[in-house]
Amino acid sequence: MLNFIYHNPVKIVFGKGSISELTNLVPKNSKILMTYGGGSIKKNGVYEQVKNALKNFNVIEFGGIEPNPKYETLMKAVETCKKENIDFLLSVGGGSVLDGTKFIAVAAKYENGDPWDILTKDVEIKDAIPLGDVLTLPATGSEMNMWAVISRESTKEKLSFGHPLVYPKFSILDPETTFSLSEWQTANGIVDAFVHIVEQYMTYPVNAEVQDRFAEALMTILIQEGPKALKNPNDYDIRANIMWTATQALNGNIGCGVPQDWATHSIGHELTAFYGLDHARTLAIVLPGVLKHQKSNKEAKLKQYAKRIWNYEGKDAADKAIEFTEQFFRSLGMKTKLKENGIGTEKFDEIAERFEKRGQMLGEHQNIGKKEVKEILHLCLE
Amino acid sequence: MLNFIYHNPVKIVFGKGSISELTNLVPKNSKILMTYGGGSIKKNGVYEQVKNALKNFNVIEFGGIEPNPKYETLMKAVETCKKENIDFLLSVGGGSVLDGTKFIAVAAKYENGDPWDILTKDVEIKDAIPLGDVLTLPATGSEMNMWAVISRESTKEKLSFGHPLVYPKFSILDPETTFSLSEWQTANGIVDAFVHIVEQYMTYPVNAEVQDRFAEALMTILIQEGPKALKNPNDYDIRANIMWTATQALNGNIGCGVPQDWATHSIGHELTAFYGLDHARTLAIVLPGVLKHQKSNKEAKLKQYAKRIWNYEGKDAADKAIEFTEQFFRSLGMKTKLKENGIGTEKFDEIAERFEKRGQMLGEHQNIGKKEVKEILHLCLE
Repeated sequence: MLNFIYHNPVKIVFGKGSISELTNLVPKNSKILMTYGGGSIKKNGVYEQVKNALKNFNVIEFGGIEPNPKYETLMKAVETCKKENIDFLLSVGGGSVLDGTKFIAVAAKYENGDPWDILTKDVEIKDAIPLGDVLTLPATGSEMNMWAVISRESTKEKLSFGHPLVYPKFSILDPETTFSLSEWQTANGIVDAFVHIVEQYMTYPVNAEVQDRFAEALMTILIQEGPKALKNPNDYDIRANIMWTATQALNGNIGCGVPQDWATHSIGHELTAFYGLDHARTLAIVLPGVLKHQKSNKEAKLKQYAKRIWNYEGKDAADKAIEFTEQFFRSLGMKTKLKENGIGTEKFDEIAERFEKRGQMLGEHQNIGKKEVKEILHLCLE
Repeated sequence: MLNFIYHNPVKIVFGKGSISELTNLVPKNSKILMTYGGGSIKKNGVYEQVKNALKNFNVIEFGGIEPNPKYETLMKAVETCKKENIDFLLSVGGGSVLDGTKFIAVAAKYENGDPWDILTKDVEIKDAIPLGDVLTLPATGSEMNMWAVISRESTKEKLSFGHPLVYPKFSILDPETTFSLSEWQTANGIVDAFVHIVEQYMTYPVNAEVQDRFAEALMTILIQEGPKALKNPNDYDIRANIMWTATQALNGNIGCGVPQDWATHSIGHELTAFYGLDHARTLAIVLPGVLKHQKSNKEAKLKQYAKRIWNYEGKDAADKAIEFTEQFFRSLGMKTKLKENGIGTEKFDEIAERFEKRGQMLGEHQNIGKKEVKEILHLCLE
């Protein structure tokens, strides 16, 4: 096991009816900016529950944060925060709204230049508006971590940042708010969470038993409960198990003291930036490519995964493990090839060059650069 | 899954050489009371590492905290805290030293009467001296929770309290500090952690998949790594896995949203209070008795445990599950019967009556009272 530091101060309030707890969780006398997305919360009753819990608070609303939240949109919210002296941010929605809100929190207090630097340069972050959230889509794990991913339309970039100041003060998770998610959204969330787990697990063994077995537990649950959620969208326990699994998948616990490989997310972000493809849909395409390309480096863990998750042993276990994973994604309605999504080789060079320009090497061995990214994309083609 | 709130702000600093991090973790300019036990930290190099990291701090020492830390001893430390205006407590040792330090933290700031009330009455705790710890014995999980168990010699009582103010600000876990633990201590720690897991798991199913599978993961690790630790006490990874498992066993995570049954600990505490038997040794005796007595209530989970942990299915799976558990304890050198420990029925009535006097019903169904405690003790006899 590698040395690690683990510190996660987020308060999770989980269960039926938990939105009403907002009254006690939001600091008294705070002026709140309530952020949300395209308005689905107005259809499924969440908006009403939130407003009801906050009826004695001073709340300003900022709707319209997109999936893959856009810098351009978020900067408008930053203006509002400054103008209105906002001192608490409440994100109501999925991971995109929450990630956007984390960026707003920092950008509104950033005085040292262009806020885009928060995403592109190693700038010092000294302050942030405190934030909390009501989560309505289990997927990103953002509700219990300090990370956020932001897109910029003008430059077609999608980049991440992290800082302890953007840990949510609280996250409210009511599985009932997820009953109204479509099959498409549900499948996206399951694949996103699954790939988060794989990226912290599928590297090389360091005898980290808790982390390995917890990761395997979470993958087992998604494989078992995922298809059930598509069939029985209003089953509380199924939704609750998926919601809590997605949080545990990226709250830092399974990533303690183990090597990690975030190549799939990094390459996937480029596909979203160029083609607007849903985040999870990019992961379902890229992960099999990364695993095939890095098979020899990841063989021991691929075989452990084949045995413990898919009950498969044998010489071809590494190959089979990749095949089973892709089949699992397809069983959720995912397309796992670029061409199925109408994408060809036209941007391969440009994507690969971006990593070179950023000086960014990927993978647990930092052995995936421009050339390898292009090779991986070719493996994802058809 | 039941509704739950999870909030664990402890910072874990885990790994080789991590004691040197104390320099950065202890608040600057604080006056520290360093608490420890019988002096084993002076033999295994831990004392020296701690003193070295704190050479620029003002440190007063308080040694001699016993296993099953005694109120009488701790109150002397409380006096020191008041006299010396201590503003940070550093526990260096196992769970007993840490539990004792948690009590000192609260008692030193308790102004509303007899500090023993903290353990016996539902008094309001308003303040505590902040604390951190260097853990040297994986067992109690106290390093990542807000609980403490304290004994009083004069009345032969062993009682617990919990409060968010006694979450350690940080816990340093260096597995190398556990190399020098004896087989006896190592086995104690493994059994204590194992029983913590069982007490959060072996109730009735509520479809809490993450909690169940995480609990199963932790039990699997202890069964697999426990005997190895006895054979290879200086193997870093084995010690690291046991240490991290013991922490995860009682940091609240696997207990989220599930019914719990702490009857084994409650009855075990009485055996320690009356006979001075090591905490873990009482658990190895009492757990099989509790499981036998409550078999019909716990049958579904006993069968799940038999299947997933012991790979056993069949009509007698519940009985076999209890048998395998007892065998596991015995394989670690534990005696699992009262008579083997020289204990007869002489105190059964007095023990059982204590629960009645305290108005304390045990078990996930609150169906274990005076009569049932006595029945359970008889099942533990031989």
